[in-house]
Amino acid sequence: MRVLGVDPGLTRCGVGVVEGVAGRPLTMVGVGVVRTPVDAELGHRLVAIEQGIEQWLDEHRPEFVAVERVFSQHNVRTVMGTAQASAVAMLCAARRGIPVALHTPSEVKAAVTGSGRADKAQVGAMVTRLLRLSAPPRPADAADALALAICHIWRAPAQNRLQQAVALHAANATKGRTA
Amino acid sequence: MRVLGVDPGLTRCGVGVVEGVAGRPLTMVGVGVVRTPVDAELGHRLVAIEQGIEQWLDEHRPEFVAVERVFSQHNVRTVMGTAQASAVAMLCAARRGIPVALHTPSEVKAAVTGSGRADKAQVGAMVTRLLRLSAPPRPADAADALALAICHIWRAPAQNRLQQAVALHAANATKGRTA
Repeated sequence: MRVLGVDPGLTRCGVGVVEGVAGRPLTMVGVGVVRTPVDAELGHRLVAIEQGIEQWLDEHRPEFVAVERVFSQHNVRTVMGTAQASAVAMLCAARRGIPVALHTPSEVKAAVTGSGRADKAQVGAMVTRLLRLSAPPRPADAADALALAICHIWRAPAQNRLQQAVALHAANATKGRTA
Repeated sequence: MRVLGVDPGLTRCGVGVVEGVAGRPLTMVGVGVVRTPVDAELGHRLVAIEQGIEQWLDEHRPEFVAVERVFSQHNVRTVMGTAQASAVAMLCAARRGIPVALHTPSEVKAAVTGSGRADKAQVGAMVTRLLRLSAPPRPADAADALALAICHIWRAPAQNRLQQAVALHAANATKGRTA
């Protein structure tokens, strides 16, 4: 299972590809940051993010894309840009038929550190350990993208079973009505 | 001058094309709504919006795209979707090299009604009058998209003069440094 994690942002969009299955050691396939100039027009920044994400999809062919779910509790200006960058990442994946999963920051932290309130350093340290890297990935956005991918791999089995159960239930309900 | 106005939204994205210049009667070229199913996955909704906007750009070839600037004062859930839909509209335009302008709701209301606090009915009534339509466009999102396009046509001369002045100043400053 190969997952591209995306930590969305207009100025820095963290991207990280992780391969593996739950219960086995994971492998980092690639990590990086898609950057856009702060002084560029918003439309052009979104085009640059699209081109960056497309390159990562072309190069690494992930089976899933995991994007951080955006909340608007924080800084209003930043959150709008984050929502817009995340829209571009989701669009790129969905256009290729790649399933997109959204995970909240606390789900990601809980998955890799055991605590939903872990700080950046703790997340970086666990990503380094879980992927057997020699040093924490920099910047933090890159480490967060890897953490998202790891979170998705570990959470996916349960989610898939749940989706199967829901689909089965829906199919049976339909059968019941048409019988 | 032909402008596509976009009132962004995940469920209903208002689109309207207006042609004309400031100081002359304006013409409505087209109006409609790009809809996406509420129960579809977010990624698929964004793809549907992209396809809808692309169709409008293909069919009407606007020289400018005017998008409503999104604020996050309102309902948090709605605002995220609005920001994401607006990102797709801006991306589609910028990818084709079409200039994108953002106008706030109060700028648009002030442009077509004279008051930044006008209500939906007033905006609809003025759009109907200014474009010499037989009835207000429905739904309100479609009327808002036309109002955005009208606002852009009327505001653009001043903006263009400002942009020219800024560009001239920058060019002179460069000359000064290199002389």
